[in-house]
Amino acid sequence: MNHQSLVGQFAHIVGPDGIISDKTEHDAYVRDWLGKWTGLTPVVVRPRSTTEVSAVLRLCHQTHTPVVTQGGNTGMSGAATPDTSNSQVVLSLTRMKRIRDVDPINNTMTVDAGVTLAQVQQVATDADRLFPLSLGAQGSCTIGGNVATNAGGSGVLRYGNTRDLVLGLEVVLPDGRVWNGLRALRKDNTGYDLKHLFIGSEGTLGVVTAAVLKMYPAVRNRQTAWIGFERLADVVDALRGLQDICGDSLTAFEMMTQASLDLVLGHFNSARSPLQSPVAFHVLAEVSHTSATAATTPFEDALQALIERGLAVDVALASSTAQAVEMWGLREGISPAQVAAGHAIKHDIALPISSIPQFVQEADSICADVRPEFTVINFGHIGDGNLHYNVLAPASLGEKSYKQAVEQLNRLIHDLVAQYGGSISAEHGVGQLRRDELKRYKSSVEMDLMMTIKRSLDPNHLMNPGKLL
Amino acid sequence: MNHQSLVGQFAHIVGPDGIISDKTEHDAYVRDWLGKWTGLTPVVVRPRSTTEVSAVLRLCHQTHTPVVTQGGNTGMSGAATPDTSNSQVVLSLTRMKRIRDVDPINNTMTVDAGVTLAQVQQVATDADRLFPLSLGAQGSCTIGGNVATNAGGSGVLRYGNTRDLVLGLEVVLPDGRVWNGLRALRKDNTGYDLKHLFIGSEGTLGVVTAAVLKMYPAVRNRQTAWIGFERLADVVDALRGLQDICGDSLTAFEMMTQASLDLVLGHFNSARSPLQSPVAFHVLAEVSHTSATAATTPFEDALQALIERGLAVDVALASSTAQAVEMWGLREGISPAQVAAGHAIKHDIALPISSIPQFVQEADSICADVRPEFTVINFGHIGDGNLHYNVLAPASLGEKSYKQAVEQLNRLIHDLVAQYGGSISAEHGVGQLRRDELKRYKSSVEMDLMMTIKRSLDPNHLMNPGKLL
Repeated sequence: MNHQSLVGQFAHIVGPDGIISDKTEHDAYVRDWLGKWTGLTPVVVRPRSTTEVSAVLRLCHQTHTPVVTQGGNTGMSGAATPDTSNSQVVLSLTRMKRIRDVDPINNTMTVDAGVTLAQVQQVATDADRLFPLSLGAQGSCTIGGNVATNAGGSGVLRYGNTRDLVLGLEVVLPDGRVWNGLRALRKDNTGYDLKHLFIGSEGTLGVVTAAVLKMYPAVRNRQTAWIGFERLADVVDALRGLQDICGDSLTAFEMMTQASLDLVLGHFNSARSPLQSPVAFHVLAEVSHTSATAATTPFEDALQALIERGLAVDVALASSTAQAVEMWGLREGISPAQVAAGHAIKHDIALPISSIPQFVQEADSICADVRPEFTVINFGHIGDGNLHYNVLAPASLGEKSYKQAVEQLNRLIHDLVAQYGGSISAEHGVGQLRRDELKRYKSSVEMDLMMTIKRSLDPNHLMNPGKLL
Repeated sequence: MNHQSLVGQFAHIVGPDGIISDKTEHDAYVRDWLGKWTGLTPVVVRPRSTTEVSAVLRLCHQTHTPVVTQGGNTGMSGAATPDTSNSQVVLSLTRMKRIRDVDPINNTMTVDAGVTLAQVQQVATDADRLFPLSLGAQGSCTIGGNVATNAGGSGVLRYGNTRDLVLGLEVVLPDGRVWNGLRALRKDNTGYDLKHLFIGSEGTLGVVTAAVLKMYPAVRNRQTAWIGFERLADVVDALRGLQDICGDSLTAFEMMTQASLDLVLGHFNSARSPLQSPVAFHVLAEVSHTSATAATTPFEDALQALIERGLAVDVALASSTAQAVEMWGLREGISPAQVAAGHAIKHDIALPISSIPQFVQEADSICADVRPEFTVINFGHIGDGNLHYNVLAPASLGEKSYKQAVEQLNRLIHDLVAQYGGSISAEHGVGQLRRDELKRYKSSVEMDLMMTIKRSLDPNHLMNPGKLL
């Protein structure tokens, strides 16, 4: 079927205002927000309902038309960008915005895929509950995209990844059939747990159109501290020391090196280090309580113990919400400061937490060895074993040399990650970015299992071709 | 291939002491512990290692021999019992008992499938950590069986089901290949999360031979209370009221009706109700703290608030560990008291928690209507929405009338469960017990998706045939 006739049929399904066929208006849909990947599409289709998504996929199935599903288009790995063949339809779900149900007694909500993460958080807040997923793009990313990529962020230490926050899904299958798995249950052992197949599958098995999400008791009381360390082994010991006393109330444990903090201090005039002297490793730790009157002593005692045990060299406890916000500002300032500083070679890796000190020592030594003129910007959700181990190129480096450095360092760092039983994509997914690397680091048995699943659910290979597998 | 030659080849793989071919010694392997199902097998094969499991499955694959995998044989649904065709080999994993790794800094352990749950708990305790899965059969059930059935139990409110406690798996596939997915990572977004396919699949897709399990900070301080209610709606409100103040520290919220408690009081001479007068609904609530010196006031305040709000009619706080143990004894006494009281028609159901009051009202009324001479014994993990809604037959009822009553009540109760969006098997799985019912309550799309997965991973249909699907 030619493009024009296909476009007409899509318009028939979603209405004329639901399609964008004029290529001059495609920019926001065919280019990822980092500007790394740009594709072409004959048409952007914007359904409003599951019924419309179902009809669109049925038509794609009948006409062998490939589909790239897109939410807020804030991904880090190019998974939501079409290729340049001009054959892949972009299915944008941002008009699917219904809050279908809120049940504060069951602690659940059911929402359309196109609802933004910030809106989901707000729905929970309005019900005096917490939806704990939290990440930089929350104002524009959609919950459907969060589900499809199993988004992580800064709430994982206590609440887990998106996968752990989903009780049920509605999915339109590649042939247009709708699987209604919108169960709002904490326990259900009636067969294969199909939702986990679709969570994190990056649009390659079907289209998530709605989700049942868990809510948690609202947090009414937070304490935030900034802790200085000289050795990474002490950081890791301190994590367990704090959890030993504070248990689940420890909701954040974020690490950054002095070089990462210096980048932020240099970029933002108003930024100040919470500690008086530079230290090798900085940690932002936070405890959260549901009770407004929870005792503050366990956290203070636990911090004091870190000093007494000789693990921490300095501690600053935020004495006001404003101070806590400033501390989080330093953590969140790393990404913009890094962008302003030039090209960064990125690694979104996860490791067994016990291996991190030795891994970092070896990785630092590799970088110093092969690229002494580069700066390691190592920070991340160390409480989850997740490091954003980035390497900043000198400003003078040309585009071609930079690309060579990316290949060289990606290979060396990821080989080291594999050696330590880690993951080369902790939270950003595979998409186009890591697709070729996957074969190097997964066993042939695992690649074969994934291909078996893919072939059985999407035999015509129409769902997001060129991504992940 | 004939049985004798097959047995010889198995003996060659696992050694002569690794097979049991004498049928007089098969009883413990071919009959489930409830005595509901008895089958026949040509041979019980007891491998010691993953390599042996792999060789056994390769041979089964080549000879088209069906395999029933078995752990501690403590399941509730007959999933580990062979059928009566005398063609299904029983693969017992209880000799696979290695603790492969314990990593208290990463809060993980890696263990063979045949390690018992109690041993897993002990390994965590020895490392000053907690493995929170807890259930009646923990002395004899194996962690492999827990994984294969996604076991629930009494720690789910805070820590989730077995699924939530597993970071990685090693699985032998139906053709004998080994998938090494033993990753000890909190974040890993590199493709489909294959472990979730095998967790809860009841041995129908492959054989779980090892798992990486999460550990948690040790609990050093518990408070246990017994709370009386007159209305189920108040019980559900009280759950949220307690969580609102105690948050994650609320680790148990177990409900039983007065009839359930009466059964226990009648069966055990030493048992006494913690409350002075009978009430309609009893709740055992517990908070757990990692800090030995955690404040006890939030829980006490929260209980006081339940009285003040008119939700609870009476509260007894355990003033010693002995009193707490007594309270748990009442909860755990229901099952044995029920067995002693005669035939119980069992329903292991889950519902959205907000629907429970209305569901129970309707279910009670159905039972009173169709079987006025029966007694409803309703209890369970209400904090997870999981009720063991059992119906006790009069002692005088004959076997045939009992079987008719089972069919009648299963149908009526499960139809009602479906109406409320619930599950007909919350934690006990499908096995043989609920296999035929599954088709009634699952959509054809979902049944088809499950069959698609089954066919793609086990095309010869050799893994636990006759179970689940």
